[in-house]
Amino acid sequence: MEGAHPRILERLIETNMEKTGVYGFDIYSESARNKIRTACQAPNADIFFLAGGTQANSTMIDAMLRSYQGVISVSTGHIAEHEAGAVEFSGHKVITLPEHDGKLTSEDVKKCLLAYQEDENRDHEVMPGMVYISQPTERGTLYSLRELQELSGVCRACGVSLYLDGARLAYALACPENDVTLPDLAKYCDAFYIGGTKCGTLFGEAVVIPKHDSIPHIFTIIKQHGALLAKSRIAGIQFDTLFTDDLYFKIGKNAMDAAVKIRKALTEKGYTFAFYSPTNQLFITLTKEKCASLSEKVEMGFWENVDDSHVVMRIATSWATLPEDVDKLIEIL
Amino acid sequence: MEGAHPRILERLIETNMEKTGVYGFDIYSESARNKIRTACQAPNADIFFLAGGTQANSTMIDAMLRSYQGVISVSTGHIAEHEAGAVEFSGHKVITLPEHDGKLTSEDVKKCLLAYQEDENRDHEVMPGMVYISQPTERGTLYSLRELQELSGVCRACGVSLYLDGARLAYALACPENDVTLPDLAKYCDAFYIGGTKCGTLFGEAVVIPKHDSIPHIFTIIKQHGALLAKSRIAGIQFDTLFTDDLYFKIGKNAMDAAVKIRKALTEKGYTFAFYSPTNQLFITLTKEKCASLSEKVEMGFWENVDDSHVVMRIATSWATLPEDVDKLIEIL
Amino acid sequence: MEGAHPRILERLIETNMEKTGVYGFDIYSESARNKIRTACQAPNADIFFLAGGTQANSTMIDAMLRSYQGVISVSTGHIAEHEAGAVEFSGHKVITLPEHDGKLTSEDVKKCLLAYQEDENRDHEVMPGMVYISQPTERGTLYSLRELQELSGVCRACGVSLYLDGARLAYALACPENDVTLPDLAKYCDAFYIGGTKCGTLFGEAVVIPKHDSIPHIFTIIKQHGALLAKSRIAGIQFDTLFTDDLYFKIGKNAMDAAVKIRKALTEKGYTFAFYSPTNQLFITLTKEKCASLSEKVEMGFWENVDDSHVVMRIATSWATLPEDVDKLIEIL
Amino acid sequence: MEGAHPRILERLIETNMEKTGVYGFDIYSESARNKIRTACQAPNADIFFLAGGTQANSTMIDAMLRSYQGVISVSTGHIAEHEAGAVEFSGHKVITLPEHDGKLTSEDVKKCLLAYQEDENRDHEVMPGMVYISQPTERGTLYSLRELQELSGVCRACGVSLYLDGARLAYALACPENDVTLPDLAKYCDAFYIGGTKCGTLFGEAVVIPKHDSIPHIFTIIKQHGALLAKSRIAGIQFDTLFTDDLYFKIGKNAMDAAVKIRKALTEKGYTFAFYSPTNQLFITLTKEKCASLSEKVEMGFWENVDDSHVVMRIATSWATLPEDVDKLIEIL
Repeated sequence: MEGAHPRILERLIETNMEKTGVYGFDIYSESARNKIRTACQAPNADIFFLAGGTQANSTMIDAMLRSYQGVISVSTGHIAEHEAGAVEFSGHKVITLPEHDGKLTSEDVKKCLLAYQEDENRDHEVMPGMVYISQPTERGTLYSLRELQELSGVCRACGVSLYLDGARLAYALACPENDVTLPDLAKYCDAFYIGGTKCGTLFGEAVVIPKHDSIPHIFTIIKQHGALLAKSRIAGIQFDTLFTDDLYFKIGKNAMDAAVKIRKALTEKGYTFAFYSPTNQLFITLTKEKCASLSEKVEMGFWENVDDSHVVMRIATSWATLPEDVDKLIEIL
Repeated sequence: MEGAHPRILERLIETNMEKTGVYGFDIYSESARNKIRTACQAPNADIFFLAGGTQANSTMIDAMLRSYQGVISVSTGHIAEHEAGAVEFSGHKVITLPEHDGKLTSEDVKKCLLAYQEDENRDHEVMPGMVYISQPTERGTLYSLRELQELSGVCRACGVSLYLDGARLAYALACPENDVTLPDLAKYCDAFYIGGTKCGTLFGEAVVIPKHDSIPHIFTIIKQHGALLAKSRIAGIQFDTLFTDDLYFKIGKNAMDAAVKIRKALTEKGYTFAFYSPTNQLFITLTKEKCASLSEKVEMGFWENVDDSHVVMRIATSWATLPEDVDKLIEIL
Repeated sequence: MEGAHPRILERLIETNMEKTGVYGFDIYSESARNKIRTACQAPNADIFFLAGGTQANSTMIDAMLRSYQGVISVSTGHIAEHEAGAVEFSGHKVITLPEHDGKLTSEDVKKCLLAYQEDENRDHEVMPGMVYISQPTERGTLYSLRELQELSGVCRACGVSLYLDGARLAYALACPENDVTLPDLAKYCDAFYIGGTKCGTLFGEAVVIPKHDSIPHIFTIIKQHGALLAKSRIAGIQFDTLFTDDLYFKIGKNAMDAAVKIRKALTEKGYTFAFYSPTNQLFITLTKEKCASLSEKVEMGFWENVDDSHVVMRIATSWATLPEDVDKLIEIL
Repeated sequence: MEGAHPRILERLIETNMEKTGVYGFDIYSESARNKIRTACQAPNADIFFLAGGTQANSTMIDAMLRSYQGVISVSTGHIAEHEAGAVEFSGHKVITLPEHDGKLTSEDVKKCLLAYQEDENRDHEVMPGMVYISQPTERGTLYSLRELQELSGVCRACGVSLYLDGARLAYALACPENDVTLPDLAKYCDAFYIGGTKCGTLFGEAVVIPKHDSIPHIFTIIKQHGALLAKSRIAGIQFDTLFTDDLYFKIGKNAMDAAVKIRKALTEKGYTFAFYSPTNQLFITLTKEKCASLSEKVEMGFWENVDDSHVVMRIATSWATLPEDVDKLIEIL
């Protein structure tokens, strides 16, 4: 809800009157791409900066599918529920599978892909062409490295692509329970994006396609989707800053340190968690009265109604959360 | 090619650590909307901030058309040539008419609309549902108020919408030859956008729909197109700044003063203009030798080849053009 | 699997060398439309003849939705599973609800529509714009008149349309358990189609829109979908024949008489029905051995595997099923 | 305007009560495919039967293009003017080039393709991915073998596909001036269709893809477009009949013999041809008075207004034109 990390604003000011190229052909975008390539150990990766998450998802999914294919997603996936049909707008079906702690299991994906292959009527059905996951998930959970490897293995064995939505990736990377690194993502995914908007930038997501030219004409596809940034330097400078001096990881760590502290306090004070989330989002079940009284003092997000007298509320930390805010919050709880 | 007007960066810094709403529900977006409503004398206008021009065009055109309709554009229109088929991507045909100094004439539009209405086979054809124009045009020319009124009259008489692309609108508004104001646009267009990206912001275009709720569910349509800005305050602050103390008009004036001065110098020095443009873009015909020697010292954009020995080059001024740059340029020419 | 009802072929021959209009403007199409209007007690209905069921569904769903809307279907609905994403191809999401004997319940639909209306995030979601059902359903079950009325009531209260897929409608209309008539469909649905391909024609479905001009420019939408029949008389003559001397109902009755007889025999011989279907499709559970031995002598369709040793097979009767075939089948069973 | 060639109806009756497979997996479709393969000297061709011309065009164009590509057509092409935006509906731009007697020239196509390749801004533009032509053209003219070879050469050199719309192909094949055979089409086109609807069938077009599996998943694409015929035998039987005993060529010849005779009579009687057409459509310029008096006795189609006092009318012959009709017509003229 705040603007951008102050270091980003400083860099925008320092470079403001320089003249640079556009549409990604500027020195800052190139520098940011190189730093991201290094961080991902993917020296040949194609990298594009798009304005927002729904845009990145719908553009990349359309780019990675043929017209007759659909994308597999967990039923609670962002593309399945909260993107106003952006995937269907480009002609593709979202094929949903059940969620397990907000995640797809490789078993379910394998079963789905094999069922398609073995179905005699498959030519009358939407062909699954890729798998969409997010790290962390909508419920704040994480795919482990083993889970990611298994999913990737299933996808590659069946000839479908794996795409990862990293809108809040900084918080996953900094989570104590996490064992999936950027190079892992580059190794096991066919494309993914490193979230900026929710991780310290004014706006912007960095789409990474580890294997060079594996999506031909992706530049034109981005333009066709209205997703090409003209003054690309603005995104370039922001990601260049995020990937300088480990800022992206520090941003994640700040949020995670705060979340860990708050979780501990919530546990000690006897709060009930609606479900377990190891990352920067905490989901607690409250009576409606408690919720009302807390809401006067604490900023929480409504998540869902449980029954007539209980609700689930979400507390989220971020790059901008200050230690004193955490202390004040804990005092209030 | 520079970043943003310095006043915009200052405001981003001043407000950076404030917490605000998202998706347009923040105080800065609301403030910006109100200032734009006032500037347009359109107190009930719906206003949305989108990231870029192609996105604004393709989203609004899809929003204003029914599935079986197409959009009329001049053959040299941006949507007809330089947006990678973004309009067709949403299922609509771009119906092109001949250009007259880069402009549509109301006569041609009327003829096209009547021809459709009178064609016995019209139900087998794409129904023209709206007219797309830009101010200034791709050739830097301007619709006069009378031309706008006539176009609008034809559109309303035939029941089609009029949409105006204002990517470089600041330069039109500040042009000495211009007689079309923002209130005129609000009066004669069904929707238009006030360009930011090319007129001093980091990014962003302000879509104005003068008549409240005339495009139902436009918010969802924007989301579906991947065009909804999450951290909307960033666009809000920028447009709030542009519409404070007449900054948007001053930005235009700076560019126009420079352009007028350069045009005068070019004329005096005997340069040939490829075609007349009253706004901030000057199109000159050069021999290839002259072009090569000038290009070493002056930043020009390639426009088109005339023949084997001549080219058309474009010189464009902007909010960032300094008087000393103009003097230096004139000296070199 | 046979061709067409012999009466249809006779009429095609009788009229073959006449010259008539095209694209629906021929006397046979007009005659067929009038007979269908009479049968539906919908004197002002708009009626169009399309070639096939998927085409009718995808064209009508696109015609009845705005670009940002989706269609509610039961999870086992034909559009949800067996049309290769034809609905998504036109940009719309299929929103699935659980099946109850292959049917949607009005309670589930109401809950879904209210949940959307009450959801604070609804503008980020696909808006449900219509409900798709079929009569009979994919599982051969029937909506009762009361169920249809309730569904229609929920739809109208919430401002969404109701569309019915009648690919096998003749068999529903002739089913002893059925209490839904053509005039009921015209009263409670906003559009539906009377199936021809599976009910005695060479090809063709008759789309009925009870309220005249309730879908503006539907002719052009049909053309845009590639669904406009040039030589429309061929469809016109077929439906004119089906609606002469109650042929459509006789066709259904022939299939139902056979199905009732077979069902009785299956029950007496101790076969297990996988699920109950009152119409012309019978679903029986067989051991794989039994299935193999029966398949040599009887034409059955594979439906699904139950477990390693059991399968569900489908026996379907039609307009072409002869009494002697039924007797022979019963003997074999 | 008549029904179908009598031989087709006879065959439909003879085979009517046979039970066959569906969706193209029936013996008649297979037999028809084999006869067409033989006639085209394309033993491995993939062949599909679709219901109509617009459907065949829009399905095949979508199948042959990637999402970011467009199709080149002559400005008077059927897909550019008379298909209600069916191509744009599937997301693709129709890129129009000027007509020369209703035809594209290979020079224009080459220039267009090279211009794209050499344009520095090409990534912001629609990529031409295929070329659409028809034989005969909308103006009744014919591509010569040399013209077809040159077009095909340009396409192959530039890596784009060539598709031919043969809605009236029988009349081209039988035209005395024609030198392009079915094997030539199979050799020089990547796909084409052999028209049935306008050449003697009740409905149906046979899409021929000479190189097996060159369009992966074409079956699913056809289904997704709502273009898959369930009772495929009906189309199969019709095309099997057309390609038995040279019926398709005889049908064309009947129309051409009549057209040649009428053209000769028109010339002798001093009529003015609006433009030259060697095939079964004759375009004559008439005064409005003459047109009015002739129209009472002769069936002509309105083509276009020339000026206030003259119109162009079309006389078309077909498989059903009888010698006595021709004689009567000539007498009246």
